[in-house]
Amino acid sequence: MSGYAIGVDYGTNSVRALVVDTATGEEIASHVYDYPSGEAGILLDIKDPNLARQNPADYVVGFVVSVKEAVAAAASHDGFSAEQVVGVGVDTTGSTPLPVDASGTPLAMLDEFRDNPAAHAWLWKDHTSHAVAEEITRLATERGEPYLAKCGGAYSSEWYWSKITHCVRTAPEVAKAAASWVELADFVPAYVTGNLDPKTMPRGICAAGHKAMYNEEWGGLPSAEFLEALEPGLSRFRYETKAVPSDHVAGGLTEEIAGKVGLPAGIKVAVGAFDAHMGAVGAGAKAGVLVKIMGTSTCDCLPAPLSKKLPDVPGLCGVVPESIMPGQYGLEAGQSAVGDIFNWFVKNLSPAVYGNDGAAHAKLTVDAARLAPGESGLISLDWNNGNRTILVDPLLTGLLVGQTLHTTAAEIYRALVEATAFGALTIIKRFEEYGVAVDEVVNCGGIAEKNPMVMQIYADVCNRPMKISRSAQTCALGAAIFGAVAAGEHDSVESAQQAMTGFKDTVYEPIPENVAVYERLYTIYRTLHDAFGTKEWSGSLHHVMKDLISLRTEARG
Amino acid sequence: MSGYAIGVDYGTNSVRALVVDTATGEEIASHVYDYPSGEAGILLDIKDPNLARQNPADYVVGFVVSVKEAVAAAASHDGFSAEQVVGVGVDTTGSTPLPVDASGTPLAMLDEFRDNPAAHAWLWKDHTSHAVAEEITRLATERGEPYLAKCGGAYSSEWYWSKITHCVRTAPEVAKAAASWVELADFVPAYVTGNLDPKTMPRGICAAGHKAMYNEEWGGLPSAEFLEALEPGLSRFRYETKAVPSDHVAGGLTEEIAGKVGLPAGIKVAVGAFDAHMGAVGAGAKAGVLVKIMGTSTCDCLPAPLSKKLPDVPGLCGVVPESIMPGQYGLEAGQSAVGDIFNWFVKNLSPAVYGNDGAAHAKLTVDAARLAPGESGLISLDWNNGNRTILVDPLLTGLLVGQTLHTTAAEIYRALVEATAFGALTIIKRFEEYGVAVDEVVNCGGIAEKNPMVMQIYADVCNRPMKISRSAQTCALGAAIFGAVAAGEHDSVESAQQAMTGFKDTVYEPIPENVAVYERLYTIYRTLHDAFGTKEWSGSLHHVMKDLISLRTEARG
Repeated sequence: MSGYAIGVDYGTNSVRALVVDTATGEEIASHVYDYPSGEAGILLDIKDPNLARQNPADYVVGFVVSVKEAVAAAASHDGFSAEQVVGVGVDTTGSTPLPVDASGTPLAMLDEFRDNPAAHAWLWKDHTSHAVAEEITRLATERGEPYLAKCGGAYSSEWYWSKITHCVRTAPEVAKAAASWVELADFVPAYVTGNLDPKTMPRGICAAGHKAMYNEEWGGLPSAEFLEALEPGLSRFRYETKAVPSDHVAGGLTEEIAGKVGLPAGIKVAVGAFDAHMGAVGAGAKAGVLVKIMGTSTCDCLPAPLSKKLPDVPGLCGVVPESIMPGQYGLEAGQSAVGDIFNWFVKNLSPAVYGNDGAAHAKLTVDAARLAPGESGLISLDWNNGNRTILVDPLLTGLLVGQTLHTTAAEIYRALVEATAFGALTIIKRFEEYGVAVDEVVNCGGIAEKNPMVMQIYADVCNRPMKISRSAQTCALGAAIFGAVAAGEHDSVESAQQAMTGFKDTVYEPIPENVAVYERLYTIYRTLHDAFGTKEWSGSLHHVMKDLISLRTEARG
Repeated sequence: MSGYAIGVDYGTNSVRALVVDTATGEEIASHVYDYPSGEAGILLDIKDPNLARQNPADYVVGFVVSVKEAVAAAASHDGFSAEQVVGVGVDTTGSTPLPVDASGTPLAMLDEFRDNPAAHAWLWKDHTSHAVAEEITRLATERGEPYLAKCGGAYSSEWYWSKITHCVRTAPEVAKAAASWVELADFVPAYVTGNLDPKTMPRGICAAGHKAMYNEEWGGLPSAEFLEALEPGLSRFRYETKAVPSDHVAGGLTEEIAGKVGLPAGIKVAVGAFDAHMGAVGAGAKAGVLVKIMGTSTCDCLPAPLSKKLPDVPGLCGVVPESIMPGQYGLEAGQSAVGDIFNWFVKNLSPAVYGNDGAAHAKLTVDAARLAPGESGLISLDWNNGNRTILVDPLLTGLLVGQTLHTTAAEIYRALVEATAFGALTIIKRFEEYGVAVDEVVNCGGIAEKNPMVMQIYADVCNRPMKISRSAQTCALGAAIFGAVAAGEHDSVESAQQAMTGFKDTVYEPIPENVAVYERLYTIYRTLHDAFGTKEWSGSLHHVMKDLISLRTEARG
């Protein structure tokens, strides 16, 4: 008799529940719930484009509706009954912290704060705290703190302490009422298991380690002294809980929630983690297996054995013990824009002959696929949205070189695809430079599934086979894997993966003659990368993009 | 009673005759004759895209038809009669040499060579001789010859000796039959005045000096030794004639031609010169007055007094005594692509929302004109067709930097316009660095007349008022001016210009706040210019565009 686990995947605009067979990984039912608040689930401020908040009530209702409907849909599957569901796992966006009171209730759910944006969840892409982020980077650097070495050398406006500090300074009434700030990845498991006391609620190592500068090397969160130096009173938000990986149990499903969703009460709920990390597990990440989650941007996740002590790897988004899976360092890297660059080109620069949007993507791809590597004479940098890895610099911009009077749209489109592949190779090289093996690459996400041209270019540029995850819902699948492991259905994450994940039959193999050309093009890419992206390069052009941004800022007043 | 002069302007696809009042410059009639041979007047070879020839018969018929029809049209003008026409001037494309026999007859007009492309006129944009051009540059450099210092340091595939040498090597039967090679600018006056003997026919200093390395400093054409070293037997095509400016008389109109076109026999025909140079005179060029002829590319012409000896100015297309007007050095510079870059963008990268072609140009211009300098955060290099001045390097390519996920087509369009303006400023700065005054800038050509946004950006970038030539036919007007001077209707070119040329009322004045921003942007442009365009720049990226071109060549087989 099969067991089932449910993965609940909180995305930016909706939450998805997926019912998975723990023996085979078969995905037997799912349901997606769109957050009802704001614009596609996001609370905006027309006066401040940096603001992006969410209503915690959407998360709570979203759990109930998505899980209930997924379970109801699963009922039509031969041999399924709700009693066979053994565990639940949860993944979410992040860093998406929300302020709660001493009972763990989100402040936004209290009448007093219902209309106060600062009391809501601060969505990952809220950039209101950019000035604080720079301050944190400066302060940690000046004080010689070790914190930033694990997160690429710069703290981000998207992250936990930036957001809390900005709230203390700009919405003191909210900060005062807050007993704690809880990452969404921790809030959902705490809520559905009733373990809401902020002092004791389970905190996941993934969010804490990647976004809150938590590391056991220095005793957990940053020191009270550091936080006080950043903002007096801030140290009140340090929690002493030991952050743990997602094979740990957050608690048992409460009777109330269980009754609403039609599952047995008390079944195990795993500690939560970020969508990309659980998605990597759902795609088959393990030591030496890099998972690339390819969408508008990419997130690259690579486990590496804790048994071999890693040096700090400069330029990675994070190196956190057990953040992806137990017993392994979790190494995270990423590219700030991939699909977003292709979308930008199609939206703004695709000529009439290609038609609109979807059609244009397809037709440009057909024409671009006909070109041989090097044939266009073009090369591009993939920095239209800055560079996350390995330069960690949001103030970098795009570059295209080599255009003539005969250069076509399809040639530029291909050059942009190639640029993102060169960016991907730069990340792989950085891992290897620091002794982290990359034996295999697995891709998932919309681009990986739908665009063979892109995947072939990645194979040729990286000179490695590109595999594709079998599941199209790797995040929810990964969450279900952790639900299964937390429930004891599998001994380890690895054995759960062995049973529940796989690759598609199609593997994109590198084509030797293309590899040879791309090696030469990468040399040029790397020259431009270092010239425009680093200060160390002889005759550095590092100032060029910054100067243009300064002028732009002044011109826009 | 007024006198009239006729300017005959041989363009790439057609010839135009213009009847002008020598007292006022009023253009009373014109006629355009499209060359009937080949594709729009050009003989092509589908197997060799570098080949571009013309049928000399088109030139001969073109003179007769265009002048006859212009004179006929002028007859309806109050007070005009053909007897009042005092002189004719001729301007042509170049370097467009054609092989002739000992009687001066073009070989292509002989039955034996009628179908031999090498026996026709080698149009300026014929690039079959590119390998020879490199050989000439190398040989002159190795031998320490002074020839190249007057023409930018590199000999071009478009020029006289490249073409003749290539003919000797690839079509020896033609070379053997040729008594001489005659530039089109010399052929037309010789033909219509009957002075066809190649040994004595008048040769213009403009074509000789700019394209055939003629300079009295070294005794005229390159030495026989040099030519023999290049190709045994080549020195046979040295002519000993003294090349002269276009205020000289080539001869009197023959009775035969006069009869055909309806003009008095014997009226003076001026020595011919290139279209851009006579166009500059028609626009008002004189010492300190730079004329920019703005079209798909630009040609920049600046006279400077012979009385002050000029140093060699590196990177100019040419510095030739009296090539533009008597008593002045003729300095020529240019940009390999201006309007061509805008056309390329519209054709290949203008999104559907802007519609097609003409409409898209207009709408992009409207949106681009709304942007403030610096607002886009973009900067571009204007090298999509290489760089003519000051880098003299056809193997440079375009560059765009600063694009984000929000960059629009109109922003890029404006950045391309600005790039051509920065290129224009670089030329002006080069003149000034070598002590040549640029007191005034006059623009002519389609862009100057039709695009106020472009002209305002040029005024702001160059921090100088931009004037526009009154005539829309400056080349033909310039030719008419030389016709009038040759006929003695005016004492000098300057006094003819005083009477016959003028500016439009609209002058584009620099706007101080824009000037301030563009000064900063130019600093960035110049950094990129030097980094990608010169070997001397620290950490030079000079190899980047070359490497991409090499890869392109290989990939295209």
